[in-house]
Amino acid sequence: MNILVLNCGSSSVKFRLIHTYFDLIRENKDYSIASGLIERVGSEGLLSFRSTNAQGEVLSTLRTTAPVRTHQAAIDQIIKWITSENSGIQGIQSLEDIHAVGHRVVHGGEKLTRSVLIDDSVVEQIEDCIELAPLHNPQNLKGIYAAKKTFGPNIPQVAVFDTAFHHTLPDHAYLYALPYQIYRRHRIRRYGFHGLSHRYVRFRYRTILGMERENVNIISLHLGNGCSACAIKNGNSIDTSMGMTPLEGLVMGTRAGDVDPAILTYLAHKEGHSLDDLDKLLNSQSGLLGISGLTNDMRELIEESLENDDRRAKLALEIFAYRIKKYVGAYLSAMNGADAIIFTGGIGENADFIRQKICAGMNWCGIEIDENLNKQTTRGREGRISPDGNKPEVWVIPTNEELVIARDTYRCVMRKE
Amino acid sequence: MNILVLNCGSSSVKFRLIHTYFDLIRENKDYSIASGLIERVGSEGLLSFRSTNAQGEVLSTLRTTAPVRTHQAAIDQIIKWITSENSGIQGIQSLEDIHAVGHRVVHGGEKLTRSVLIDDSVVEQIEDCIELAPLHNPQNLKGIYAAKKTFGPNIPQVAVFDTAFHHTLPDHAYLYALPYQIYRRHRIRRYGFHGLSHRYVRFRYRTILGMERENVNIISLHLGNGCSACAIKNGNSIDTSMGMTPLEGLVMGTRAGDVDPAILTYLAHKEGHSLDDLDKLLNSQSGLLGISGLTNDMRELIEESLENDDRRAKLALEIFAYRIKKYVGAYLSAMNGADAIIFTGGIGENADFIRQKICAGMNWCGIEIDENLNKQTTRGREGRISPDGNKPEVWVIPTNEELVIARDTYRCVMRKE
Ligand SMILES: Nc1ncnc2c1ncn2[C@@H]1O[C@H](COP(=O)(O)OP(=O)(O)O)[C@@H](O)[C@H]1O
Ligand SMILES: Nc1ncnc2c1ncn2[C@@H]1O[C@H](COP(=O)(O)OP(=O)(O)O)[C@@H](O)[C@H]1O
Repeated sequence: MNILVLNCGSSSVKFRLIHTYFDLIRENKDYSIASGLIERVGSEGLLSFRSTNAQGEVLSTLRTTAPVRTHQAAIDQIIKWITSENSGIQGIQSLEDIHAVGHRVVHGGEKLTRSVLIDDSVVEQIEDCIELAPLHNPQNLKGIYAAKKTFGPNIPQVAVFDTAFHHTLPDHAYLYALPYQIYRRHRIRRYGFHGLSHRYVRFRYRTILGMERENVNIISLHLGNGCSACAIKNGNSIDTSMGMTPLEGLVMGTRAGDVDPAILTYLAHKEGHSLDDLDKLLNSQSGLLGISGLTNDMRELIEESLENDDRRAKLALEIFAYRIKKYVGAYLSAMNGADAIIFTGGIGENADFIRQKICAGMNWCGIEIDENLNKQTTRGREGRISPDGNKPEVWVIPTNEELVIARDTYRCVMRKE
Repeated sequence: MNILVLNCGSSSVKFRLIHTYFDLIRENKDYSIASGLIERVGSEGLLSFRSTNAQGEVLSTLRTTAPVRTHQAAIDQIIKWITSENSGIQGIQSLEDIHAVGHRVVHGGEKLTRSVLIDDSVVEQIEDCIELAPLHNPQNLKGIYAAKKTFGPNIPQVAVFDTAFHHTLPDHAYLYALPYQIYRRHRIRRYGFHGLSHRYVRFRYRTILGMERENVNIISLHLGNGCSACAIKNGNSIDTSMGMTPLEGLVMGTRAGDVDPAILTYLAHKEGHSLDDLDKLLNSQSGLLGISGLTNDMRELIEESLENDDRRAKLALEIFAYRIKKYVGAYLSAMNGADAIIFTGGIGENADFIRQKICAGMNWCGIEIDENLNKQTTRGREGRISPDGNKPEVWVIPTNEELVIARDTYRCVMRKE
């Protein structure tokens, strides 16, 4: 089955076309046929596409610009290229050769706790969650509406939620210490995000080690532009650092993560900020960017810190790593110990310098990393980076959220048939 | 030297008269002569006083009401009783027999990092910190102004700060991941509170174990109406859960502690709350009270939970204990392990049920408590509650913030002379 995975943002559409099937899933051999990104949706779009064969070899690439006014137009561009001769893709000549569409949806609220075939009622429920994720769900919905127009009503579409993996959080982990009726009335609680990534990490870890899901006790650290930690006990997410929104928790590229909530009132009085200003300040001007005053790009910060000894770049890295270190301890406590700490996401997969910082001075609980293994395990490599026999182990597992979406989409479609 | 310790709140004045001296401090034999509380300052005040001898035996008590319009009037009432025959106190006949006054001041900001003799410039600096602690510093100042009027300009007065103990926090622990200029411009950072209590705990712990200050590696948990955790490494506070204000961190009687900061904006939009409403909601309607919908009193919550199996009372206790458990793990991580976890404050000293909840399921890091020792160590008893030989140890150390104030006051006065 050929599944188109879509991830629609406010001005971008990311896609991946994945060939999958029960046997392939079992053997972990389902593969990507094409993938790409359209940026600047709404004006002159920037398209970057590529196709690959089952061995992962690149067949052809495209980098061009074209007017892309809407998400609909973006999806049409993607289909046009995929089905064209230029793409070099065999066996996909028309729309009919794409068998299902899987959508990444950020917020599923309390009700959408697993991947589902999209029908009108599901669309309504996703719409109900807009106020919980005003920046994301509307964009995800645009992708759903557009795909329906492009593919017609007969092709199955599936919604896969970033929050769903965390529906196993116990109430003492998802409730804030606010008046209980605030939870009742507005569903204000911890939802957590990055669920696809944490789930993929759990899946790979147990596959590599050949263990049952119920025996997985790990702390998964997704460190990308957004960052979150997840405590996975007996295979289930029992706590995670992002909260009602993706703002809470770790220091991120431009998000502050945890702060004293009283700071908001204080700043509003001091600088005459409105609540929306504050939201913007905390979400897009804080984090690594805010501390360093330079950039939210971890690669550049590491360079600045190592080459120019920049004080504030170093400070940003210190605060970033220190906050993660504390969450690791907190989750070890919440879980009564873990078998492994696992790094994923752009920073987690590549920044051996940061992994080293996080794991330094952790011998109190046995965490240690092997300098060579750590240095070698970057750029998509998967593997253990702690010394042989050491516990808890430390791993790097490159994430693959699209694969999770494709497989869920496949399973939802098969269940129905 | 007889030192009057004052702790002035918005409608209350707490006092303790302590007899102290170098030799007494060395032998830990300085003692309380009288103590008490005036509530409802501003209207018909409620006075409860008592005097004790060096052995701690009660000499006399007073419980009465009297018009107490101002903090000044409250202090006058206290002095009147202390110097009267009724109090049964020997050797204190007039104002001159009180040799110094020590004031608890909540916020010292970045500059007031140790206890100081109060002069005009110190008063100004405390005034400068009003905006950081608008509910507390003005009341503390009222006490200072009033004491100066009552005692005249010649008696030394000392300010002892709740924040000062935490001035050793490294920058990666005190900075939030906000734009750096927000720290520069407004001094928005983690200050931490309960410093007198955490300092007393450090002092007692090292005294009992006969160790140098530099070797103290403990996590101090002050659990009262306000709650905070403090990581003390090599004798210094290196992190603490309260932040710029006492709102951040653990779940407290009526304070929420940590929440996703985005919740404020969300609630404001949903319920039309102003920022000041939100402040009030998070500070005085949340925490144990908010979750349970019943009370902020831990004793009552434990009763409700044990006797009536009340669901939300139980939930409040779960969330309360779980949050502390996570902070213990986080600080073990921040410190690279600790020698002891120490409970203090009304809840920490008395609620063996809560201590048990916090320490359950912590064998991953060796924390364990002895059921009998735990049950026995309440109502002012001091001692270890972990099994003999177990590490990290768990202790209960009843706090004594007034003693810290009295001794600091004594030392400041002696240094000057
Ligand atoms: N080699 C590298 N060294 C350090 N950081 C890297 C490296 N490669 C990518 N990153 C960082 O990863 C982050 C982006 O992560 P990614 O997972 O792609 O983001 P997103 O959360 O948007 O999916 C950026 O901060 C980037 O600097
Ligand atoms: N025996 C007890 N069992 C449980 N909780 C207790 C007990 N005694 C006092 N407490 C709790 O201690 C808290 C007050 O602590 P305290 O340190 O006096 O407060 P503050 O922070 O105002 O100084 C209250 O929640 C009270 O219920």
